[in-house]
Amino acid sequence: MMAVFNRALFQMAAVVSMITLVTFYFMIFHNCSGELTQEAPTTQKLRLPPMSHLPPPGPCTCPGGSTLLKEHLPKDQYGELVKRRAKELHQHKARTTSVLSRLLFASPNSPLQYPIQGFKVLPLTSTLIPGLALHAGQRSSYKVSLNVSKGVLTTEITADGVKVQGHGESRLIMESSSLVTLNYLLAKVSYTSTVYHIHTGDLASFQFENHEAVFPITIKQPLLPVLYDMGTDVSSHVTVITKTFLRYTQLKVLLSSIRRFYSNIEVIIADDSFEPENITGEHIRQYIMPPAQGWFAGRNLAVSQVTTKYLLWVDDDFVFTEETKIEKLVEVMEAVPELDVLGGTVQGNQFYFSLLYEEGEEMDGGCLYRKSNEKFHPLPGYPQCSLTSGVINFFLARTHAVQKVGFDPKLQRVAHTEFFMDGLGSLLVASCDHVSIGHQPKTSHNKDKARYDKFRNPAGMLIPAECDHLPFLSVNESSTGQTTCGRALCADHNFDIKIGER
Amino acid sequence: MMAVFNRALFQMAAVVSMITLVTFYFMIFHNCSGELTQEAPTTQKLRLPPMSHLPPPGPCTCPGGSTLLKEHLPKDQYGELVKRRAKELHQHKARTTSVLSRLLFASPNSPLQYPIQGFKVLPLTSTLIPGLALHAGQRSSYKVSLNVSKGVLTTEITADGVKVQGHGESRLIMESSSLVTLNYLLAKVSYTSTVYHIHTGDLASFQFENHEAVFPITIKQPLLPVLYDMGTDVSSHVTVITKTFLRYTQLKVLLSSIRRFYSNIEVIIADDSFEPENITGEHIRQYIMPPAQGWFAGRNLAVSQVTTKYLLWVDDDFVFTEETKIEKLVEVMEAVPELDVLGGTVQGNQFYFSLLYEEGEEMDGGCLYRKSNEKFHPLPGYPQCSLTSGVINFFLARTHAVQKVGFDPKLQRVAHTEFFMDGLGSLLVASCDHVSIGHQPKTSHNKDKARYDKFRNPAGMLIPAECDHLPFLSVNESSTGQTTCGRALCADHNFDIKIGER
Repeated sequence: MMAVFNRALFQMAAVVSMITLVTFYFMIFHNCSGELTQEAPTTQKLRLPPMSHLPPPGPCTCPGGSTLLKEHLPKDQYGELVKRRAKELHQHKARTTSVLSRLLFASPNSPLQYPIQGFKVLPLTSTLIPGLALHAGQRSSYKVSLNVSKGVLTTEITADGVKVQGHGESRLIMESSSLVTLNYLLAKVSYTSTVYHIHTGDLASFQFENHEAVFPITIKQPLLPVLYDMGTDVSSHVTVITKTFLRYTQLKVLLSSIRRFYSNIEVIIADDSFEPENITGEHIRQYIMPPAQGWFAGRNLAVSQVTTKYLLWVDDDFVFTEETKIEKLVEVMEAVPELDVLGGTVQGNQFYFSLLYEEGEEMDGGCLYRKSNEKFHPLPGYPQCSLTSGVINFFLARTHAVQKVGFDPKLQRVAHTEFFMDGLGSLLVASCDHVSIGHQPKTSHNKDKARYDKFRNPAGMLIPAECDHLPFLSVNESSTGQTTCGRALCADHNFDIKIGER
Repeated sequence: MMAVFNRALFQMAAVVSMITLVTFYFMIFHNCSGELTQEAPTTQKLRLPPMSHLPPPGPCTCPGGSTLLKEHLPKDQYGELVKRRAKELHQHKARTTSVLSRLLFASPNSPLQYPIQGFKVLPLTSTLIPGLALHAGQRSSYKVSLNVSKGVLTTEITADGVKVQGHGESRLIMESSSLVTLNYLLAKVSYTSTVYHIHTGDLASFQFENHEAVFPITIKQPLLPVLYDMGTDVSSHVTVITKTFLRYTQLKVLLSSIRRFYSNIEVIIADDSFEPENITGEHIRQYIMPPAQGWFAGRNLAVSQVTTKYLLWVDDDFVFTEETKIEKLVEVMEAVPELDVLGGTVQGNQFYFSLLYEEGEEMDGGCLYRKSNEKFHPLPGYPQCSLTSGVINFFLARTHAVQKVGFDPKLQRVAHTEFFMDGLGSLLVASCDHVSIGHQPKTSHNKDKARYDKFRNPAGMLIPAECDHLPFLSVNESSTGQTTCGRALCADHNFDIKIGER
């Protein structure tokens, strides 16, 4: 296969180049003089790329009325926290950035040919660098050099008329009186990374006379793909998960409604009630947590136990109806594999929102905006669904993708938006209006109701309880009055974040 | 596939013709007769980048004695499973690959300047393309065009002496009699992606006469950094986690040994015993699972509940000693933030192994090799630690990194290597010999011992029990006799994988 591909390429290339060659021959025939002098100045003037136009990671200013963290911090803690946060951010950058994000340019009229993208090597493994070549005009002698910083370079040493220095080192210099020979050597140059790393990069500097080209080398340990077996029916690829706390009455209604429509689908229940009741049944798994561990801890526990390709999140006081057709959501996910989360509607209410994140200054953090009822655009081929940043508490999700983001167990109550904040940039989210689930009547005569409410909605928090033990910041969504906070915000110590309508 | 093939062909042809063109230009420059006969053939020989030398995703052949999955599959299931697997792999590729991995070359002697790396845009957000310029010699008129496929292009329309076509479309053509004016227009060109996506790319084609440059555009929604507050002492940044099953005697010994050295460090216990005993105590959290959920399900549950930056994994029959200095492991992790997992020794036994993964053909999967006692090289600055692929059951790990990989709950017993297989390429792992933990005497008179052993080591499995409900393949590590299997293998349906010494 590879061989055929190359031969085809070779022939095609040969033909094209001959044609071009000849055409060009006639073009040039009429006028042999180049205008070097005129070219030089403009070249000079234009060499510098307009760096200033790069999107700067600069500060962002949050609108007035923002809840500023520092105003809520005891003065004596502030200094220490800022120091620790700076160190964490520094480590975060060391982990997430490499030379592969640096801006590089191809300079015009350079005689050098080199790979600008796609040259990938395994750590500690020698790999030939594709496409290196010099296309300079007549010289008495041709001398090029290659420099790397995280590896060594080798080539084939050919005996006569060639000078090679630094074979097996990080700087390789090759000289020959023949361009053909030099290009032969260049075609044989291999790169070997000398430090084991699983995802990083190196920059190679390729030089001839006063020309320099810098190109990236991706050093990557490939991952084994994680593939789930869809099996043959919905219960072989979807698990229903929920979290309960002092609401067994509602939970039982939910469970029987599930069984009405899906007789053998797996159901996982995370339970942090004070006196857990035993919930048993075919394909029902109950996990007992220490009391009052909280909303996200329970979600994260449930997610950690799913073995099917997809999971369906439902609240313990929802109820399956004729419109709760999981298959319809699966159909969309299967058709658009880039999707990670697909929300439906709860009793006809299709809640969704978009998030805008402005990366801020190192010390002050960024600004995060949430806009309710904003979607980006319909999902191609599925007009009932639209891309957005966050959805309602009823969604089908790709198990592996959700496990990667997780529900921060620090968040004990109220949290919902926070999952989508943490997933921003990791989860592709859409909201659909053609699949819905019911909500049980709010006025339940559950003996635990009062106790539940006390936990669920602690009164009069300026900084909500779930933020107390977080390193930082509560965020007040003034537009809705709902108070919310999240790991992304709290642990990221974004001092000036405001969540609210733009 | 065909499309890619053709485009590749076309690009090659373009590259080749330009190169040829320009070399010829240089030749003629110095001497109008030009040695066509001499240069042309060498030109041919040297133009083509050695594509064949790119690491091909081709097949790998596993050594004889490999356990071949297909031999263990009922003939009637085989066909269907292969079809399903093919579909899953196709989806996996749609999720994980983009044009950003395609091999691109900078052609020599091109008058075009353009960004080859680092041009990143937010989805649906207009961003100026840095560094676009033309450096051609004298012409009566200059005409350039830009093409993209996932967005639109705009520039500043300046009134006189300028022709701009396709403003706000995916093909932008600009013409001017003045090179300066044209370069002004080029400096003002902005790209806006038209489809919302969180991580993908576009390729821009930049053309002038018969020169073409293709450069990448990264479309990325930035993630909010996840930063943990280290706090001020070890218990504010490390949680000890374990999993127990019918071994309360050992568990209690472990817990008291922990308290001897760490009075208030958080301990999380995942428990899937048949009749769970209540384990209570300050900073001890016990989670009761349905019975016999298994080894990795328990690990994954425990990991899902950690809120500190680091977690320390220990088996329930280990015992803390004077040498169990968590701080020493934390010190290394803090100094080398790229690290994700740092193993110690158990009773002086420093077990570690390296993994080699050969990506295989689409249908047959790849080959995974495990080499015991192989490390890559010492950790710079920490000679007691060496980089490797997998370590023993006693390790400090970065919580967020481990949560991203997870312990596949499908694996019920014996599994250990599988976590590191799943983490290959995601987790940077090292093994150290300067921190150790003890192991409780094996001969415990636990009444549940027999029952435990029956579950832990089911006798005479050709395909071990934990593989039964996995879509595929058990792998026999002949060298050690230990039988093992993993999601990476089973769910990836790698038919011909063998784990064993190279």
